[in-house]
Amino acid sequence: MAPRLTHLDATGAAHMVDVSDKAVTSRMAIAEGAVHMAPQTLALIRSGAAAKGDVIATARIAGIMAAKKTHELIPLCHPIMLSKVTVDIEPDESLPGLRVRALTRVADRTGVEMEALTAVSVACLTLYDMAKAVDRGMTIGPIRLLEKSGGRSGDWKAEP
Amino acid sequence: MAPRLTHLDATGAAHMVDVSDKAVTSRMAIAEGAVHMAPQTLALIRSGAAAKGDVIATARIAGIMAAKKTHELIPLCHPIMLSKVTVDIEPDESLPGLRVRALTRVADRTGVEMEALTAVSVACLTLYDMAKAVDRGMTIGPIRLLEKSGGRSGDWKAEP
Amino acid sequence: MAPRLTHLDATGAAHMVDVSDKAVTSRMAIAEGAVHMAPQTLALIRSGAAAKGDVIATARIAGIMAAKKTHELIPLCHPIMLSKVTVDIEPDESLPGLRVRALTRVADRTGVEMEALTAVSVACLTLYDMAKAVDRGMTIGPIRLLEKSGGRSGDWKAEP
Amino acid sequence: MAPRLTHLDATGAAHMVDVSDKAVTSRMAIAEGAVHMAPQTLALIRSGAAAKGDVIATARIAGIMAAKKTHELIPLCHPIMLSKVTVDIEPDESLPGLRVRALTRVADRTGVEMEALTAVSVACLTLYDMAKAVDRGMTIGPIRLLEKSGGRSGDWKAEP
Amino acid sequence: MAPRLTHLDATGAAHMVDVSDKAVTSRMAIAEGAVHMAPQTLALIRSGAAAKGDVIATARIAGIMAAKKTHELIPLCHPIMLSKVTVDIEPDESLPGLRVRALTRVADRTGVEMEALTAVSVACLTLYDMAKAVDRGMTIGPIRLLEKSGGRSGDWKAEP
Amino acid sequence: MAPRLTHLDATGAAHMVDVSDKAVTSRMAIAEGAVHMAPQTLALIRSGAAAKGDVIATARIAGIMAAKKTHELIPLCHPIMLSKVTVDIEPDESLPGLRVRALTRVADRTGVEMEALTAVSVACLTLYDMAKAVDRGMTIGPIRLLEKSGGRSGDWKAEP
Repeated sequence: MAPRLTHLDATGAAHMVDVSDKAVTSRMAIAEGAVHMAPQTLALIRSGAAAKGDVIATARIAGIMAAKKTHELIPLCHPIMLSKVTVDIEPDESLPGLRVRALTRVADRTGVEMEALTAVSVACLTLYDMAKAVDRGMTIGPIRLLEKSGGRSGDWKAEP
Repeated sequence: MAPRLTHLDATGAAHMVDVSDKAVTSRMAIAEGAVHMAPQTLALIRSGAAAKGDVIATARIAGIMAAKKTHELIPLCHPIMLSKVTVDIEPDESLPGLRVRALTRVADRTGVEMEALTAVSVACLTLYDMAKAVDRGMTIGPIRLLEKSGGRSGDWKAEP
Repeated sequence: MAPRLTHLDATGAAHMVDVSDKAVTSRMAIAEGAVHMAPQTLALIRSGAAAKGDVIATARIAGIMAAKKTHELIPLCHPIMLSKVTVDIEPDESLPGLRVRALTRVADRTGVEMEALTAVSVACLTLYDMAKAVDRGMTIGPIRLLEKSGGRSGDWKAEP
Repeated sequence: MAPRLTHLDATGAAHMVDVSDKAVTSRMAIAEGAVHMAPQTLALIRSGAAAKGDVIATARIAGIMAAKKTHELIPLCHPIMLSKVTVDIEPDESLPGLRVRALTRVADRTGVEMEALTAVSVACLTLYDMAKAVDRGMTIGPIRLLEKSGGRSGDWKAEP
Repeated sequence: MAPRLTHLDATGAAHMVDVSDKAVTSRMAIAEGAVHMAPQTLALIRSGAAAKGDVIATARIAGIMAAKKTHELIPLCHPIMLSKVTVDIEPDESLPGLRVRALTRVADRTGVEMEALTAVSVACLTLYDMAKAVDRGMTIGPIRLLEKSGGRSGDWKAEP
Repeated sequence: MAPRLTHLDATGAAHMVDVSDKAVTSRMAIAEGAVHMAPQTLALIRSGAAAKGDVIATARIAGIMAAKKTHELIPLCHPIMLSKVTVDIEPDESLPGLRVRALTRVADRTGVEMEALTAVSVACLTLYDMAKAVDRGMTIGPIRLLEKSGGRSGDWKAEP
């Protein structure tokens, strides 16, 4: 069968696809992204009150809460009952900037890739928000899926 | 004064900064992003029922609605009454993929950069969602602010 | 100028229209609707514990809360700061059923018709929900705007 | 047993009824509604840029997203994990206006009638919103359940 | 093993804990709280139009709806599909004030204590809101869990 | 005039009161609350990874985000555009437990007391959530308004 966009019907109309017949399996996804910034912006985040303060925690909480809102944001995503969400944020001098990684898990009929990608996106936006007063030129990305497991399409890993 | 992260107080605690004393001015922001995909994925989106169908409209609506949710997603963003949101999505064979651009406007005490960036991010995520069954290796980004105007910090444009 | 759909641009793309240049004026809207039901369903709502109970209050609260969510539900509606919402619900034996009327008010750049219509719609849905176990054949409607005032287009009243 | 309103307890207090003991079965519902408008309003929607544009897609997406918000809008509705939502919108010269039909599906302990009715209601409100600048006299309705299947009360179809 | 805060990982980072391996069991929780007020405030709520009016119903509906929003409010709470919520509100001259009690139930991998506590908290806030124009000195609390059952940690009851 | 509940009309029906005629003034509110816990629970929060970790930041962010959701939670609250929110959380061995204080500010037609009280309530619930696995007997409260300023009713301070 030729590949097609499953979220459209034969006439091109968008719909929330029927997952009734899919099996409830354990599904997992990992996504990553980054916020690129000026070296002095990263230095500011890593120094003084900021280093011990709420920057990373705020972005992490924003990412976790956003994962739970994925189906409210992405029109054709199914509501799911996430059983696990973690968001890790690490400074990386080589960018320079911050790397964000999210892991999501569920036992359901549909995958959790969008939830992981949404967590990463919103965590990155939150980091941008907190540093934008000193650096408007930051860029977000690339945001991508690293791996996913479970479901009919099976396991998948991004090329390194 | 040395630059500092305005969203943290002196102890490093996150807070929603006081904008009471800022002037109500007309503020505007433009952000952009892209979804990079395999050439055949872009071809699929541009052909047949999909081309005439709801792919672009769905991502556009998702972006517009997300702009209105920005303060629910980004913990330290102020609620604002957006007076205009547009989201434009164009195929670009040179990526290959889709380019997304959002413009936001408000008359308020605080800027609309985060609203434009959030609209772009969620429009990109929605495009990813609709095509992910045929291409999990897509990447989102770079997402960045192109320009903003209004407010105490004045006008700003990204370097080309 | 020929009439056109203001929520679409020249290419047919949906957008949230710019209201920056509109004047902040006092705006008001009144909408109405009805739930038609079997006579015995209405009798049940008007008798015993139900009559003194929470049926009407629940639908009224749902309508008021929905008015505040209008911009989250209707993609191209602007967020506004409603300054008043009332929802009245009256039994009407001539339907037979319940009549719902909502009034909304704001001082803003954009009208409150959609807020009044949304309050009526959700109040009607809530009434349906509470009585559906005894009467699935109820119908909702007609829902319509009765009058609105304020704004550039001025006052308007529905024909009787 | 005499029929009673299940959403009220013996004192008339509203509550979210216990569905713990209900069986998880496959449940489906179809609802319909319409927006009645002036002939020239319908003609405007069916011509030029609008015809190829986002009017129908916007209302469809609004309806699908609203179905997922049903339990946030209707106070006594249970949260459920919808497995399918479709919204179809067709012009009908005989009204004149637009007909809206929604289908919802779930495997759960509680039905999806309210989700289908909410999708129809919000799609109708969105259509009204997009055309209201040219026709404030449009009316919405009748909105009604067409059929439902699954659950203890079994299958049900509206009289034609 | 020494007790530890399960919502933090070994580095102190907050995460949504993995409940994938927990059993789906029937879980129930009961929480209570109170709003303390001046005697004349309670008298006002219990007399005239207020007594027959929507005060108690409004707070009850607010509590029920808030229970469904618990995972949106509490960052590390899992989304769950509540199968039952009741909120009872009784005047108590001995406070003087109003006592609030909520019961929540679910068949899931995680408990419903936070849902019951959130329902009580928001019902109390709603009561405060409705009476605050006549009595700003009201206090809310103590809010506490009375009992819970189901899950790995088993049944628990508060000391009387 | 005898005191009355402003959120009810003459028939006892709840409504969102009209604030159109109120002046836009600078308004501020401060509320406080506490979570009482076993001494060893407080010790656990103050030691090791937890002390340097996200406990306080998570509750603070939850409180700030909840302040922005007040009008979604409290049925008759007006939507407002908060211009400032801070949430402070301090351990207090004399409880033993954690004290929470929130300050909210706005320039609007209606006050921000409910926003401050909601921020405190949800921050307390979040603290309870994070520690509940080791101490289910914690109690929340008393939650109360400490002071407010601005608006027709003027300044107010709680008795010490």
